[in-house]
Amino acid sequence: MNNSMIIYILGQVVRLEGILMIIPCITSLIYQEHEGFAFLVVILACVIVGTLMTIRKPSNQTIYLKEGCIATAFSWVLLSIFGCMPFVISGEIPSFTNALFETVSGLTTTGASILSDVEAMSHGMMFWRCFTHWIGGMGVLVFLLAIIPMNSASGSNMNLMKAESPGPSVGKLVPRLKHTARILYAIYFAMTLLEVVLLLFGRMGLFDAFCTAFGTAGTGGFGIKNDSFTSFSPYIQWVVTIFMMLFGVNFNFYYYILYRNVRKALSMEEVRTYFLIILGAIGIIFVNLMQTMSNAWDALRHASFQVASIITTTGYASADFDQWTQTCKTVLVILMFIGACAGSTGGGMKVSRLIIMFKTVVKELGSYFHPKNIKKIKMDGKPVEHEVVRAVNVYFITLMGIFTISVFLVSFEGRDLVTNFTAVAACLNNIGPGLSQVGPTQNFGMLTGFSKYVLMFDMLAGRLELFPLLLIFNPGVYRDMIMGAVRYVKRKIAARRVS
Amino acid sequence: MNNSMIIYILGQVVRLEGILMIIPCITSLIYQEHEGFAFLVVILACVIVGTLMTIRKPSNQTIYLKEGCIATAFSWVLLSIFGCMPFVISGEIPSFTNALFETVSGLTTTGASILSDVEAMSHGMMFWRCFTHWIGGMGVLVFLLAIIPMNSASGSNMNLMKAESPGPSVGKLVPRLKHTARILYAIYFAMTLLEVVLLLFGRMGLFDAFCTAFGTAGTGGFGIKNDSFTSFSPYIQWVVTIFMMLFGVNFNFYYYILYRNVRKALSMEEVRTYFLIILGAIGIIFVNLMQTMSNAWDALRHASFQVASIITTTGYASADFDQWTQTCKTVLVILMFIGACAGSTGGGMKVSRLIIMFKTVVKELGSYFHPKNIKKIKMDGKPVEHEVVRAVNVYFITLMGIFTISVFLVSFEGRDLVTNFTAVAACLNNIGPGLSQVGPTQNFGMLTGFSKYVLMFDMLAGRLELFPLLLIFNPGVYRDMIMGAVRYVKRKIAARRVS
Repeated sequence: MNNSMIIYILGQVVRLEGILMIIPCITSLIYQEHEGFAFLVVILACVIVGTLMTIRKPSNQTIYLKEGCIATAFSWVLLSIFGCMPFVISGEIPSFTNALFETVSGLTTTGASILSDVEAMSHGMMFWRCFTHWIGGMGVLVFLLAIIPMNSASGSNMNLMKAESPGPSVGKLVPRLKHTARILYAIYFAMTLLEVVLLLFGRMGLFDAFCTAFGTAGTGGFGIKNDSFTSFSPYIQWVVTIFMMLFGVNFNFYYYILYRNVRKALSMEEVRTYFLIILGAIGIIFVNLMQTMSNAWDALRHASFQVASIITTTGYASADFDQWTQTCKTVLVILMFIGACAGSTGGGMKVSRLIIMFKTVVKELGSYFHPKNIKKIKMDGKPVEHEVVRAVNVYFITLMGIFTISVFLVSFEGRDLVTNFTAVAACLNNIGPGLSQVGPTQNFGMLTGFSKYVLMFDMLAGRLELFPLLLIFNPGVYRDMIMGAVRYVKRKIAARRVS
Repeated sequence: MNNSMIIYILGQVVRLEGILMIIPCITSLIYQEHEGFAFLVVILACVIVGTLMTIRKPSNQTIYLKEGCIATAFSWVLLSIFGCMPFVISGEIPSFTNALFETVSGLTTTGASILSDVEAMSHGMMFWRCFTHWIGGMGVLVFLLAIIPMNSASGSNMNLMKAESPGPSVGKLVPRLKHTARILYAIYFAMTLLEVVLLLFGRMGLFDAFCTAFGTAGTGGFGIKNDSFTSFSPYIQWVVTIFMMLFGVNFNFYYYILYRNVRKALSMEEVRTYFLIILGAIGIIFVNLMQTMSNAWDALRHASFQVASIITTTGYASADFDQWTQTCKTVLVILMFIGACAGSTGGGMKVSRLIIMFKTVVKELGSYFHPKNIKKIKMDGKPVEHEVVRAVNVYFITLMGIFTISVFLVSFEGRDLVTNFTAVAACLNNIGPGLSQVGPTQNFGMLTGFSKYVLMFDMLAGRLELFPLLLIFNPGVYRDMIMGAVRYVKRKIAARRVS
């Protein structure tokens, strides 16, 4: 295990977080809030720790997949711990567990909150809380790859990107990974700005517009009002609806559009299926809502908003959908698991995995007729490698395994099955609100510390697509690390002897 | 498609059902119930239809996997339709849908009932209702294979057995399939008789003992009392508990024991894991029950009874477990999906599939360290073929797919999520009672006809392990059948011309 490289990456990540925290710190200064002090302390800590960890650039910069996964997993844990400190120091969320929960929920773009009164937050803290969504949405390591010069000869950085990016297979848009990362962030940045502008047209304040756009772009879901989006105007709800849908699209789609390859963009199976599912779900919920709502436009708006919010795993609420009919709730729970497109900022299983699984089952049924047919299944006209199919299957099994164990652990709370089931579903798929006691008008604050840590694990596991986080629990990792450290010390001693 | 062979098999199955119905008919005569008449009518119909269908033995007896699956799926549908007729004709369950639901539930060994007052049934009908569990438990086609001489040169019959027997891979115990089927039925028969004798010692009546033993042996779960097993003595509850566990064991285990290969029997990974899961689940539920029950023996008895009942997918109830703590209910729902061993009479996913999936995930985690390791996972010391692993994965994905769609369809009822979720889980895994409105003290009678047909499909799909039943919905099957018929007619015409 290349320990020094892992430490180097972690250092970079921590320092980067410190630098990013300058923005909420400035926000605090603008609004003349004394909470800015808390940010200053943490920024200093991050920069010092980060610099100490990166003082020596490792000579061997090779990262294999295991190092990529480990570095990513530990990065996210460190980011969460440093990220929650401003809340704790400022006293806005005095409990460390609660602050950590809120930060993990922010970074993983889940949006599950322990706060019962978000409107009481200071501007600086609110900004940081929403900003974590934006940081976590596209990924911290992807950002690092975009800005930091690292030796990419041996495909090392690809292993970092693989570990952090959602979807069954990660492709480079352009030959150089650094440029791919930059293009992704440029699209991300431009779309966020566009949403801010459109929200401003709806007479939303600049601060609120930024916070809302961060939550939409990262498909996070932290609201800035206690009632999420219930009290906003229909115009603003529609803008957010459309941007939620857009941020759930595979970013390759936008890349193709930008580079005038519209035909390739429009033929992307995943994107087409994604919109078909959205249309179908809106249709079903619309019909159900029409039974209770007199206004068809209201029904359409709520149906669209909620479907977009749940399938993209954002988690904003325009209405208390826990009060809707069983069919609506069932559709929403199914959407929770489906999730957005691969290569988007959304969570869940991803539409492309669903397509691959569906095609696998169809192929299996066909094999009863033509047992000797070993044709590979296809996606976008290209055959899908057996390796990818296998990985998708294993991913699904692991997802269900973690889901089952988590529901069991959360059941110690003694709450009803729907609460436990949807709390885990909402966290593991990075959505936010669930149903019943963790419904859109409720929050996660009343849970025990134990359940909160289970759900934090689920959020991180969901965001990093399970395996990087599971590796932390593999004793082999630490054996490898210790062996790496021993080798390092031995080499030092040998070098000293020679000199 | 070999149509004439499929028709021949279906005819055999229908005739066999008519013959088996003689036993409940005699029961009716013994108790001097006029319902015996209903049996007589159906027996006659079965024998006539069956004889007509089997009058000509096909010259080409080859059955490929697709024919095996189609024959099995249609066999079970026909069995259910003919099997429900006595209920309809006698007027004991006047509605055809309800009678069909009860029969499908019986044959698939689910045990979900639409009856609110089972004690009002006549003896003959009650016997038939419980007897369907016993018939369906080991399988009708397996029974056919045991008694009927068929050309087995080309492994044709193996394709029938494969389609009907539970588990990821079906092995022959002895070189000849006929003998394997006979050994299985002999063990099944002997164990059922042993349970009857032990129940008689507990002062249960002979009739009740047989009905109970049928339900236990087939891991069915139709009770003979309105309160299932709540009012029976602890002795009887313990006997049933132990036999439920025993019938959930892979029957190969008993074969090895019988043929003095105790070491091989005890080293069966699946059986060991099965008992470990049972012990773990009993432990958790026991601890939970001790908080409300004063008597440790009572708690242990109820915990053991319910764990055995649910993991083997029997579905008997010794207490209203819907009133237990959330942790208990969550454990029971998890057990619903795990199910019994492959090669037993139980349903669910099967422990061996769980083991294979678990090992697949562990292997995947290991691959992050040793990417070039392509060692196969092992079971009982032998490597598991990739083909089997793949089939297990696809099975799991399909199970979850059918589960999700069924929950969605049942949600039209407007009942709570727990009811819909557990109703489908209980039917798809062939258990019987679920939670909430389909809990152990409730029944399925209040559901709409639409939901009942969805659940009937689930029960059959669960019993036949999904694919044989899904094939019925593949238009290719009917194209093949029609082409087979056309070829047959052409050959006839050609033959006539020649002569």
